[in-house]
Amino acid sequence: MDSLFHYINKYASTLMSEEDFKVFRSHFIQKRIRKKQYLLAEGEICKHMAFIAKGAMRKYYIDEKGVEHIVDLYIENWWAGDRESFVMFTPSVYHIDAWEDCEVLLISRENTLKLCKECPAFNELLLKLDERNNIATQKRITSSISFTAEKRYADFVDCHPYFVQRFPQHIIASYLGITKDTLSRVRKKALKK
Amino acid sequence: MDSLFHYINKYASTLMSEEDFKVFRSHFIQKRIRKKQYLLAEGEICKHMAFIAKGAMRKYYIDEKGVEHIVDLYIENWWAGDRESFVMFTPSVYHIDAWEDCEVLLISRENTLKLCKECPAFNELLLKLDERNNIATQKRITSSISFTAEKRYADFVDCHPYFVQRFPQHIIASYLGITKDTLSRVRKKALKK
Repeated sequence: MDSLFHYINKYASTLMSEEDFKVFRSHFIQKRIRKKQYLLAEGEICKHMAFIAKGAMRKYYIDEKGVEHIVDLYIENWWAGDRESFVMFTPSVYHIDAWEDCEVLLISRENTLKLCKECPAFNELLLKLDERNNIATQKRITSSISFTAEKRYADFVDCHPYFVQRFPQHIIASYLGITKDTLSRVRKKALKK
Repeated sequence: MDSLFHYINKYASTLMSEEDFKVFRSHFIQKRIRKKQYLLAEGEICKHMAFIAKGAMRKYYIDEKGVEHIVDLYIENWWAGDRESFVMFTPSVYHIDAWEDCEVLLISRENTLKLCKECPAFNELLLKLDERNNIATQKRITSSISFTAEKRYADFVDCHPYFVQRFPQHIIASYLGITKDTLSRVRKKALKK
């Protein structure tokens, strides 16, 4: 499973050797998660962040009325987890489960901090990922508080064309915070254009 | 203006000496921004991130209909700017202006990258800030796509009690993505409890 090797070298300013990668890789645990199985359940502490080598996952929140709200979607080369719970050791309010059969590489908080100090490439990766993540979440917030459903969906397709292929419409509607009917209306309009 | 000195040492695992701070501080430009003046206007490239030593700012997006949507609020010890524009050198879609008279410390992208390499405390600060920022934005996204207006306002007061004192209701309503009338109804309900 060398997708992590390609991944880290895509972000590194100095390439990591295969030997250094072996040490780096030893900080991760490999795991298979079958479709519908949980990576994290509400109330648990998120002890690992998961690098997705294969498959697709979703993170969701269940409100008081029992309605599921999709908070995040993940595919290959994405990191799944609840950062707040992972950093603060607090029980998570989210569920994360496999939407397709997955192969993941798990890293603990302890090993994350260790690698941050010992491995400049990992430190660099984290800085870049967080930067990208901040940019993406800022866009998503602006979109959710100020855009129309049309613009929200168009931006989503622009940013994440792969999600449209991997997840069904009701999941995407929930991710966008709109109803299935609104999404279906918006998609019909977009196709006519 | 030593609020930056206290600030960076609050985050550092090894305290920064006053001498090291002088070198660190030389990478920033001090500036006063009077109430209603802009730090950044739509269409400009965000050349600096601003550490707010004094005052309050708001970041907003103006939609096609000319409606303002508050995207971020900032007070002392917060960083104001458009990260996407700052990192990618793309024109910003946001306005950032001073809600109160402000004193800020500006840092360029070049100096940010330089300090990241040369100053471990700054690198540590950025990692921690991005981590906190990711946690906060995740919460805000969950809130905006799945919470009722009541829960959204209650969470906002919990997380940012200081904002309630510094910004008027129409600004807070916009930040929460709800109407002024809804906010006023929600506040009356909350007071009765």
